[in-house]
Amino acid sequence: MAEKVTPRDVDYSRWYTDIVLQGKLADYSPVKGAMVIRPNGYAIWEMIQSNLDRMFKETGHVNAYFPLLIPESFMQKEAEHVEGFSPECAVVTIGGGQELEEKLYIRPTSETIIWAMYKKWIMSYRDLPLLINQWANVMRWEMRTRLFLRTSEFLWQEGHTAHATYDEAEEETLKILNVYKKFAEDYLAIPVIPGKKSEAEKFAGALHTYCIEAMMQDKKALQAGTSHNLGQNFAKAFDVQFQDKDGKLSYVYATSWGVSTRLIGALIMAHSDDRGLVLPPKMAQRPVVIVPIYRSDDEKKAVLDFAEGVYRELKEKYNVIFDDRPQYKPGYKFSEWELQGIPVRIEIGPKDVEKNNVVLVRRDTMEKQFITRVGILDKVTNELTAMQGEMLERARKFRDKNTLEIDEYNTFKTVIDSEGGFLKSHWCGDAGCEAKVQEETKATIRCIPFNEADETGKCIVCGKESTKRVIFAKAY
Amino acid sequence: MAEKVTPRDVDYSRWYTDIVLQGKLADYSPVKGAMVIRPNGYAIWEMIQSNLDRMFKETGHVNAYFPLLIPESFMQKEAEHVEGFSPECAVVTIGGGQELEEKLYIRPTSETIIWAMYKKWIMSYRDLPLLINQWANVMRWEMRTRLFLRTSEFLWQEGHTAHATYDEAEEETLKILNVYKKFAEDYLAIPVIPGKKSEAEKFAGALHTYCIEAMMQDKKALQAGTSHNLGQNFAKAFDVQFQDKDGKLSYVYATSWGVSTRLIGALIMAHSDDRGLVLPPKMAQRPVVIVPIYRSDDEKKAVLDFAEGVYRELKEKYNVIFDDRPQYKPGYKFSEWELQGIPVRIEIGPKDVEKNNVVLVRRDTMEKQFITRVGILDKVTNELTAMQGEMLERARKFRDKNTLEIDEYNTFKTVIDSEGGFLKSHWCGDAGCEAKVQEETKATIRCIPFNEADETGKCIVCGKESTKRVIFAKAY
Repeated sequence: MAEKVTPRDVDYSRWYTDIVLQGKLADYSPVKGAMVIRPNGYAIWEMIQSNLDRMFKETGHVNAYFPLLIPESFMQKEAEHVEGFSPECAVVTIGGGQELEEKLYIRPTSETIIWAMYKKWIMSYRDLPLLINQWANVMRWEMRTRLFLRTSEFLWQEGHTAHATYDEAEEETLKILNVYKKFAEDYLAIPVIPGKKSEAEKFAGALHTYCIEAMMQDKKALQAGTSHNLGQNFAKAFDVQFQDKDGKLSYVYATSWGVSTRLIGALIMAHSDDRGLVLPPKMAQRPVVIVPIYRSDDEKKAVLDFAEGVYRELKEKYNVIFDDRPQYKPGYKFSEWELQGIPVRIEIGPKDVEKNNVVLVRRDTMEKQFITRVGILDKVTNELTAMQGEMLERARKFRDKNTLEIDEYNTFKTVIDSEGGFLKSHWCGDAGCEAKVQEETKATIRCIPFNEADETGKCIVCGKESTKRVIFAKAY
Repeated sequence: MAEKVTPRDVDYSRWYTDIVLQGKLADYSPVKGAMVIRPNGYAIWEMIQSNLDRMFKETGHVNAYFPLLIPESFMQKEAEHVEGFSPECAVVTIGGGQELEEKLYIRPTSETIIWAMYKKWIMSYRDLPLLINQWANVMRWEMRTRLFLRTSEFLWQEGHTAHATYDEAEEETLKILNVYKKFAEDYLAIPVIPGKKSEAEKFAGALHTYCIEAMMQDKKALQAGTSHNLGQNFAKAFDVQFQDKDGKLSYVYATSWGVSTRLIGALIMAHSDDRGLVLPPKMAQRPVVIVPIYRSDDEKKAVLDFAEGVYRELKEKYNVIFDDRPQYKPGYKFSEWELQGIPVRIEIGPKDVEKNNVVLVRRDTMEKQFITRVGILDKVTNELTAMQGEMLERARKFRDKNTLEIDEYNTFKTVIDSEGGFLKSHWCGDAGCEAKVQEETKATIRCIPFNEADETGKCIVCGKESTKRVIFAKAY
């Protein structure tokens, strides 16, 4: 590798960008705020898509596709929604060479266009629930690009469901949050804290928003998924009523929920090291690379024969890279695949052939193991499974170590400034106190966690009574 | 079903729209020219995507994602390209509340933005070939919507490859055309004619365009996929040169190729009947429906027990619909699943339970068969396989019957007006003759077919010498 990844300790932000650019995960595009997702990065998105899509279908959802362009008048129908999203939209004013009569907004999210259609499709209780998801691109104007984390256009999925009752909508909102949590932990190996957003942080147009929050290696928080109970807000804005079994008309209840290509940024920042990307095995399209090592022609033949046998055995189950490129040295190959985060590397040299073993190096620990050739498929499977589990546990330990209970505002300010991390503190529920913390420390309430025990305490800002700690952190 | 599908004979165009709307495949959106792809239609697109994506990967391609918005200056770099696409673009002039300095075009296709990136990524012969595909939405302004066939926004895949030599690019162009042909025939059960487009019909910016052409049931042609050899046009427009093994700089050779959600329109028009959609089994996410039939409670228990056994056996292999909805009569259910094109229906009534058999109805032939319960999984598999093959053969016979060799221009005009179909006629290669036919008959040259034997003849328009017949037809 010509370039070298900047170490995390030297410059965390450059470290991140180096991994993305040198690992060929994404690139800047000539349009400000836009990115290009390169094949290595898109392969991760495909793993996210295929697994989440399966989980959505297992919970009864189907996919559909709604238009990219939303008439300005639709955007304006839900008051909070237009206020939240309008300022960051890209707007089409010319179509087919003509000035348009009505401006069209590139969707920043699709509630409005979808509820305009639901009005056509929902008549009776028989049409409910309607459980639709969409995989799409959306646009929220940005000038300062942060690859995967902050770009004008990004890819995501957005679920939009319609229900007969509030309770059903609430159940759906929580069911999906649980799908997101399971996916983050079991696939991305990122532990997350599920909870509720404060009023200030909720989705524009929602009754309330639930989220999962993850800690990155710089101890900042990253919101890894949100699920909104929209109540009857959009049904009222678009006049979507249904006839119940008794013939009575009522407004429909709604939810919406989404995760985006941001998750790739989260994946990078949760696990990677100074050598480059570290991919959890379940997120790797190609989890294994074999690198044969030889000098002489005699060695070459013996090593390649042996290595090809290993390759044949492993590719029964895995998409294996067999890196026999003659123009590159082993060390160069090691660096390249480490940079790209391939979970398991198998090295095979003349001595390994002699001893009928291989060298196995796991990307997360970088430990070398000599393992016997016999039963190699099972051994590789065991290593991949162990790695997946240990990555989650390592991230969990890191997060827990950097989560502190703080009861005093001066300490809070000192800690958030020096150490960072998740600070669990009491909050009275007042938006003024929340705003003050943000103004003075840049930390925000990431969530009011579900799993936090009730506990009597005093608001860290105003000293008023509080019954529960919330999570404050600086965030992406 | 409250509504009824208009028969093809009565009004072909309404028949098509009825199938799309009543089968809940797609719907009109409030924005002119835009459509909504509903879950039943999107499920077909998912089958197209997953199969084509696998075929692309098997031939060495990877996926990536490029920005939706293209700067106006990029569009203008390739002269033919801008002339072809600019007039039909949607243009963003406002972003984040500000008038933009440079207009941004919603991609009508992505050659320009992709080649701007390839300039950054391609330095040496080691970077070639670059074999990238993208699944994306694109926009070409339309006021007259025809669901799936003609809409402003549509979904597609676009491959964009870069090569060191003309020959390699040409090989790629043809390789992909062959992937498209195989997919159309083996999966969509639509026979296609591969060939070359005339200069007038080629892609704006290509050296030449290859295509596959299919015949619909109204005997009109539908272009089901195109593959372009772009030569060095885009490499020159974006100054993309590479250093070969000898250190010499040369412009890179390019191809691009795509198929879109139009294929769903083709699928509908190739196979469906007056009852609704007919789906080839390989395109059906849910290929089997079981409908239990009973009157009394005694019958109900026996029938449901038996039917559930059949369901359990079949769902080992297939995504089976078990339609035991008590509120609908069997006849209603039959109509609904026929409309949606489910390939195989299994009816189970009290007499079937007694005789240990089931009734199987294939959607394409609508023939009823009594089959024994034992070994039902194999029997269903056999029926689905047979159906897939017979649908292709039926479509092929229909096309061949409606393909005529015509040598006289007056006959040509009469036939194209009365019968339609594919007319194989001699053409001298002159654009004037081609334009005259189009003006006088609305028929265009669909392709210069690969598999047509050389034959001396006279141009149907001007009488000049010709060496080969080409295919004329009216087209979608």
